Amino acid sequence: MDWPVRYNNFVKKSAIGVDIGGTSVKLGLVSLEGRVLYRETFLTASAQGSQAMLHLLASRLVGLIRRAKTMRVNVRGIGIGAPGPIDVKRGLVYFFPNIPGWKNTPLRAFLEGRLKLPVWIDNDASVMALAEFRFGAGRKTKNMIALTLGTGVGGGIILDGKLFHGVSYSAAEIGHIVLNENGPRCGCGSRGCIETYVGNGYFARAVKKHLKAGRKGLLNRWVFKDGKELTPLLVWQAAKANDPLALEMWRKTGAHLGTALAGLVNILNPERIVLGGGIAQNNKFLLSAAVRTIKKKAFPIASHSVKVVPAALGVDAGLIGAAALTF
Amino acid sequence: MDWPVRYNNFVKKSAIGVDIGGTSVKLGLVSLEGRVLYRETFLTASAQGSQAMLHLLASRLVGLIRRAKTMRVNVRGIGIGAPGPIDVKRGLVYFFPNIPGWKNTPLRAFLEGRLKLPVWIDNDASVMALAEFRFGAGRKTKNMIALTLGTGVGGGIILDGKLFHGVSYSAAEIGHIVLNENGPRCGCGSRGCIETYVGNGYFARAVKKHLKAGRKGLLNRWVFKDGKELTPLLVWQAAKANDPLALEMWRKTGAHLGTALAGLVNILNPERIVLGGGIAQNNKFLLSAAVRTIKKKAFPIASHSVKVVPAALGVDAGLIGAAALTF
Repeated sequence: MDWPVRYNNFVKKSAIGVDIGGTSVKLGLVSLEGRVLYRETFLTASAQGSQAMLHLLASRLVGLIRRAKTMRVNVRGIGIGAPGPIDVKRGLVYFFPNIPGWKNTPLRAFLEGRLKLPVWIDNDASVMALAEFRFGAGRKTKNMIALTLGTGVGGGIILDGKLFHGVSYSAAEIGHIVLNENGPRCGCGSRGCIETYVGNGYFARAVKKHLKAGRKGLLNRWVFKDGKELTPLLVWQAAKANDPLALEMWRKTGAHLGTALAGLVNILNPERIVLGGGIAQNNKFLLSAAVRTIKKKAFPIASHSVKVVPAALGVDAGLIGAAALTF
Repeated sequence: MDWPVRYNNFVKKSAIGVDIGGTSVKLGLVSLEGRVLYRETFLTASAQGSQAMLHLLASRLVGLIRRAKTMRVNVRGIGIGAPGPIDVKRGLVYFFPNIPGWKNTPLRAFLEGRLKLPVWIDNDASVMALAEFRFGAGRKTKNMIALTLGTGVGGGIILDGKLFHGVSYSAAEIGHIVLNENGPRCGCGSRGCIETYVGNGYFARAVKKHLKAGRKGLLNRWVFKDGKELTPLLVWQAAKANDPLALEMWRKTGAHLGTALAGLVNILNPERIVLGGGIAQNNKFLLSAAVRTIKKKAFPIASHSVKVVPAALGVDAGLIGAAALTF
């Protein structure tokens, strides 16, 4: 192995990734191979409003670029993943559902003006999909769909090896496939979206309803006797301990998820579906029920071609995928 | 206008289109501008089984190529639209749901061997989408979805100016987006697919149910007194005459269709949706209800970017789109 050449190569091909979240903002230097070389973080709430955040972000990025120099790492650009709808072409943030004060904010223009480096922006679900596609559970595919199951259900679509955005950069809102026209009302204004079955809050409320109706078992004891908070994680722990209600809830939720995925498989005929987010991570109960439903409901040619796998990159996916926007 | 040059140009750029249907097979010469220069047709039932059809098709194509010569039209290739799942890459027909005797039939290899011309094959819904994209209601777009509403609901997807097929060439099965997990059983094995609300037979049965439950009006008279057959066309005529049940049925069916389209709009963020097929053609009742539902249920950024329009090419779409596979 020729060390200086490799080092030289490495120096040339790093980028800054920025992962803006509702709680914290992560910044880091990421190598072309998808390794995080350096990371730092600050609280989103430490800047009030978009103007304060733009200035704070710029000054942190100036610091990071300086640090890259001391590390002899060459920064080729800045990629940003952001939690809301983005005009990818113009580099605008339309708004953030969970961070007040942003409206058609020209994030890219501001940072490019200050930093003299090219800036790319995309929404966090797309960025997560890109990270898994290039360095995680979606490697070696060309057509892939990624879902992040959390409070909401986010999605990213890779077609022919590229992030797919649609005509006005708002494609891949996979959480809002309708499963039941008369189902629960969704935050988006529609009814029975997959988010209303799989989103953390909806899921926990559905479990609680069963407990209140008198279902006994581990969850009943943990929540009402031990005072534990009823979260998807708790229901997962109960399922691992073989609690019938917990197992049933994952089976049902997996079947709902599988129905939505079967529709996607019939429409997009992807090679791989990557499931990430707290509710999905290592959750064999949810995954196996979803896969069973896909096999049952999607067309055989399409369902035989798709593999459903858990996300591989964990908490760094946002940082790595953001940096990968520049690759 | 320089006639000889134009003629020369025209000569160079024609192709044969073949539209295999359950009832008849259409063949024709189609110019690069999408004009049908010559057409002929024969009954699908005149050949029993795939081998007989291959030979009949080859001999008809030999005749057509000869005719093209007498017309001084140069044939650059043959495009075929076929009513079933196709392996587009290998030129195989997996099977035809409504024409017996085909199984993994190497349609392309057979015809290329006989005719010494390149052959392209795709399924009929994709071919219709391609025709509308190049010469019809989808012109000047890059991302477009076409639906054909008939006995079944077929679909074709154009992304970045090309037919999108997915990893095993079975994408765009838009008829099998699920609207209601507990809905009517669908021929595909799932439940509550959009096809079970919008497909001709399902639609007619739903109307009949209302009539049998005692709903009065035009349809009741036409069907039970005048002995007319209850078809979507009849329900359309009743709606034009302001019959309340007919209007209600189109409104409901359009809302179902709109819910499925809203999901597609959220996932693919297309520029245009083209609706064709008997039930959709010039049916303002169905179209306007579908559009209202999209506006209500899809994300605003995406729903503002999409136009829903009726197909423009009518019965020649299959022939023109098949020829366009070679363009």
